[in-house]
Amino acid sequence: MGSVTSVDPRTGAVVETVAETTSIDETERISARAAEASRELQALTPTERAALLDALADSLGGERARLVQLADRESALGYIRLDGELTRTTNQLRLFAAVLRDGAFAEVTIDHAADGAPDLRRMLVGLGPVAVFGASNFPFAFSAAGGDTASALAAGCAVIVKAHGAHPALDAAVVAILRASCSDAGVAPDAVSVVFGREAGTAIVANPLVQAVGFTGSEGAGRLLMDVAAGRDRPIPVYAEMGSLNPLVVSPGAARRGAAALAERIASSVLLGGGQFCTKPGLVFIPDGHQGDVVLSHLSEGLAEPEGVFLLSSGIRDTFVNRVQAVAAADGVTTLVEPRSGVGSFASAALNTVRIEDLLDDPTLTEECFGPAALVVRYSSTDALAVAMRALPASLTISVFADETESAFVESMVAVADGGAGRVIFGDVSTGVAVNWAQQHGGPYPASSSSLHTSVGAAAIRRFLRPLAFQSFPDALLPQALQEANPLNLPRRIDGVMENGTL
Amino acid sequence: MGSVTSVDPRTGAVVETVAETTSIDETERISARAAEASRELQALTPTERAALLDALADSLGGERARLVQLADRESALGYIRLDGELTRTTNQLRLFAAVLRDGAFAEVTIDHAADGAPDLRRMLVGLGPVAVFGASNFPFAFSAAGGDTASALAAGCAVIVKAHGAHPALDAAVVAILRASCSDAGVAPDAVSVVFGREAGTAIVANPLVQAVGFTGSEGAGRLLMDVAAGRDRPIPVYAEMGSLNPLVVSPGAARRGAAALAERIASSVLLGGGQFCTKPGLVFIPDGHQGDVVLSHLSEGLAEPEGVFLLSSGIRDTFVNRVQAVAAADGVTTLVEPRSGVGSFASAALNTVRIEDLLDDPTLTEECFGPAALVVRYSSTDALAVAMRALPASLTISVFADETESAFVESMVAVADGGAGRVIFGDVSTGVAVNWAQQHGGPYPASSSSLHTSVGAAAIRRFLRPLAFQSFPDALLPQALQEANPLNLPRRIDGVMENGTL
Repeated sequence: MGSVTSVDPRTGAVVETVAETTSIDETERISARAAEASRELQALTPTERAALLDALADSLGGERARLVQLADRESALGYIRLDGELTRTTNQLRLFAAVLRDGAFAEVTIDHAADGAPDLRRMLVGLGPVAVFGASNFPFAFSAAGGDTASALAAGCAVIVKAHGAHPALDAAVVAILRASCSDAGVAPDAVSVVFGREAGTAIVANPLVQAVGFTGSEGAGRLLMDVAAGRDRPIPVYAEMGSLNPLVVSPGAARRGAAALAERIASSVLLGGGQFCTKPGLVFIPDGHQGDVVLSHLSEGLAEPEGVFLLSSGIRDTFVNRVQAVAAADGVTTLVEPRSGVGSFASAALNTVRIEDLLDDPTLTEECFGPAALVVRYSSTDALAVAMRALPASLTISVFADETESAFVESMVAVADGGAGRVIFGDVSTGVAVNWAQQHGGPYPASSSSLHTSVGAAAIRRFLRPLAFQSFPDALLPQALQEANPLNLPRRIDGVMENGTL
Repeated sequence: MGSVTSVDPRTGAVVETVAETTSIDETERISARAAEASRELQALTPTERAALLDALADSLGGERARLVQLADRESALGYIRLDGELTRTTNQLRLFAAVLRDGAFAEVTIDHAADGAPDLRRMLVGLGPVAVFGASNFPFAFSAAGGDTASALAAGCAVIVKAHGAHPALDAAVVAILRASCSDAGVAPDAVSVVFGREAGTAIVANPLVQAVGFTGSEGAGRLLMDVAAGRDRPIPVYAEMGSLNPLVVSPGAARRGAAALAERIASSVLLGGGQFCTKPGLVFIPDGHQGDVVLSHLSEGLAEPEGVFLLSSGIRDTFVNRVQAVAAADGVTTLVEPRSGVGSFASAALNTVRIEDLLDDPTLTEECFGPAALVVRYSSTDALAVAMRALPASLTISVFADETESAFVESMVAVADGGAGRVIFGDVSTGVAVNWAQQHGGPYPASSSSLHTSVGAAAIRRFLRPLAFQSFPDALLPQALQEANPLNLPRRIDGVMENGTL
């Protein structure tokens, strides 16, 4: 047993003791209560669960001032950004309420008895308790009440939050609000619970009652949880959204047009949120030649000018500076902007550049660098670019700045994305992840642990659902979702065809 | 290097040498060609891939006599069964052709630019090469041209078949037909290839170009592949459909009605295909009392009478007899029908019985016994039954024989299925798995490695697809599936609503 403390990254000072670390015994009791709460959530209709999600969103919104203040004190991300992030978080809960009301998530499929085959009815149901590991860089949107929690609750799965070491006080406060809101809504408060400490986190991933894991963070920590889950007697899925290089490619045509504006957009994206986004463009490919030189020169200015920011913790700042220095020390790398450290977690931006021929020689150059830094890679030909892009680890995103007339160039980058990224962007930066129906936030490993899924957007609910089929059941004994008269008014595929009029 | 031989299970004699085991170097060349072929398949429209699947079905049907003869010689399953299984297999290919023509599998989702969010378009694309490990008990339907292969090809993924040790000659013949058919259709024959030998099988699961694994077989072999895949630098999903107890429950009401007919159905299900089905009812719960005694007595007669069958191999027969004897030796077990062995792989059926109080004392009693055997469990109360059912490893199926008026009984069994099975059946046996849109063949571990998916039915395609999103793309540079005018005529969700009229 130890204490979990809350640290102010601007000063490095311990501000308060949040909790004792959760004992293994206690994780077992929490898991058992979460299993019970999952059954309760599962028994609600989709519309009832939607109302619960709306209520949770309302309750968080009702404590906005206190939550934003607490989040800022633990993350140094600033009021404006955090206020926006809380709105994003409540919008996320409401999106999943809309997903539930829409009903297609349940994938109700009915094949009536025919040709000797029996009546068969299939729907998706919740997996059971889900362990959620939030991220330091999104204390709201990818944390205790974030997308993993929202989509798991929508699926009818109780959530056990592992409080993040960088914002344990906020996680505790958010979970307390969610639990009270559940109680007010007549739902078991154990629909959301919290554990503290690394050992407790590992224990819930290993607990036989826990059925899935949502994680946002580094590849190292994500892989650790994947390995624990894969080693269980009964393995469970881990949905880990991990590091990403997010290559951004500037075509010769794009370099010719407005170098200053382009460089400014790239610089803003690298600096946004202290560069602490999983979608930050970490590698920027710029063509050789004068036009490319101009883009690079503007980009260099854009990163050199700002005085710097407080990063999420002094540990993250130290890792950032070390990573940038390791890149700078690699063969063929030229430093354009050197990072400066300051009090607490303070740091300024960094920019290095390397020729494409040297990029793949040293793995240091193709590791994610979390923080306000980018590595510019100069390339001589589209072929060399495509070869290098294919050799990179998969990313969440690839951004392509090109003229619409450069179709061969764009197509070769799209071909890279097929296998190398989850989202490919034309003429825009990768930071900024809209929460909607079409969003895809995930990609082949190591961008995420399972390329089949997304951690943002409506489809994220699919991670926590599994099919259950009923064969030859009397209508009255079927779950409502599968009854012939469709009392829940769900979209259905019947005998191979989507039912007319329900959509 | 060694030789792969084909054995006649009726005699135990080696009939022919099929191939040399595939070298690791060769698995690398095969994987590289499969990656190339996957890109080619992916470039086809869904309708074009549908035509390919239909052509593959036709080509297998065109060689029916030769294939059924070869399958019978390697499996001893008999002409009638194998003829039916080949039809099932070609129907499966045609179902996935229908899935492709339907188009909903692509999950096309479009959010137009709005409120500052960019235009975002999401679809599902193929993962890349898939390794397929077929089953001894379904030489057609779960083997080289089986459901895994059909759904992977439908998803645009090339398939590398690991030839099964029990029917390598058939697998080689089937793959040759599929390759020739691909060539005839103008598609790279490497859309389907084959490797021989256990080492080559492990090598393709470990190969970095291979993106997923389909497997049908024992828990031991399935878990081995899961562990190899989880240990890769870049882990990939393994869809292993493994062992299952498939508990069959007889309610007091069902026992009262027509014991003879009920017992006959259960016996037929236990004996079907030599009891070598993953859905064979392995545990049969019968109530205490006279009515239950009558059911059991009929069941005992039904299993004692048949003279026996040739099992798939003498190895499977030996394991079967050993498992039955281990069950018979456990505390509290009474033997009602003892198995007899004969020449080659010959064996007759077995039946043991135990009281529910003794069931969970010895793990031997809750391990799958592959072959024509069942363990009858006598129970005294619905509560005791529910407790025991919850303690069992998860199964593919749960069958409930009850009166429609016994709703509390049925509900308690459905509650068990929620977490304990993929398909729950009312008043019917679990053998017989229709291939259609609503089928669910899979369940929580150890029934399958991933409870989120099915290995039979239309939804099986989802295992080999991943989302890819395009942001802010000019229409002309988008893949056809995502273009605004919908040239492929796919069902689409647009701005959160399913498009009118396309379904």
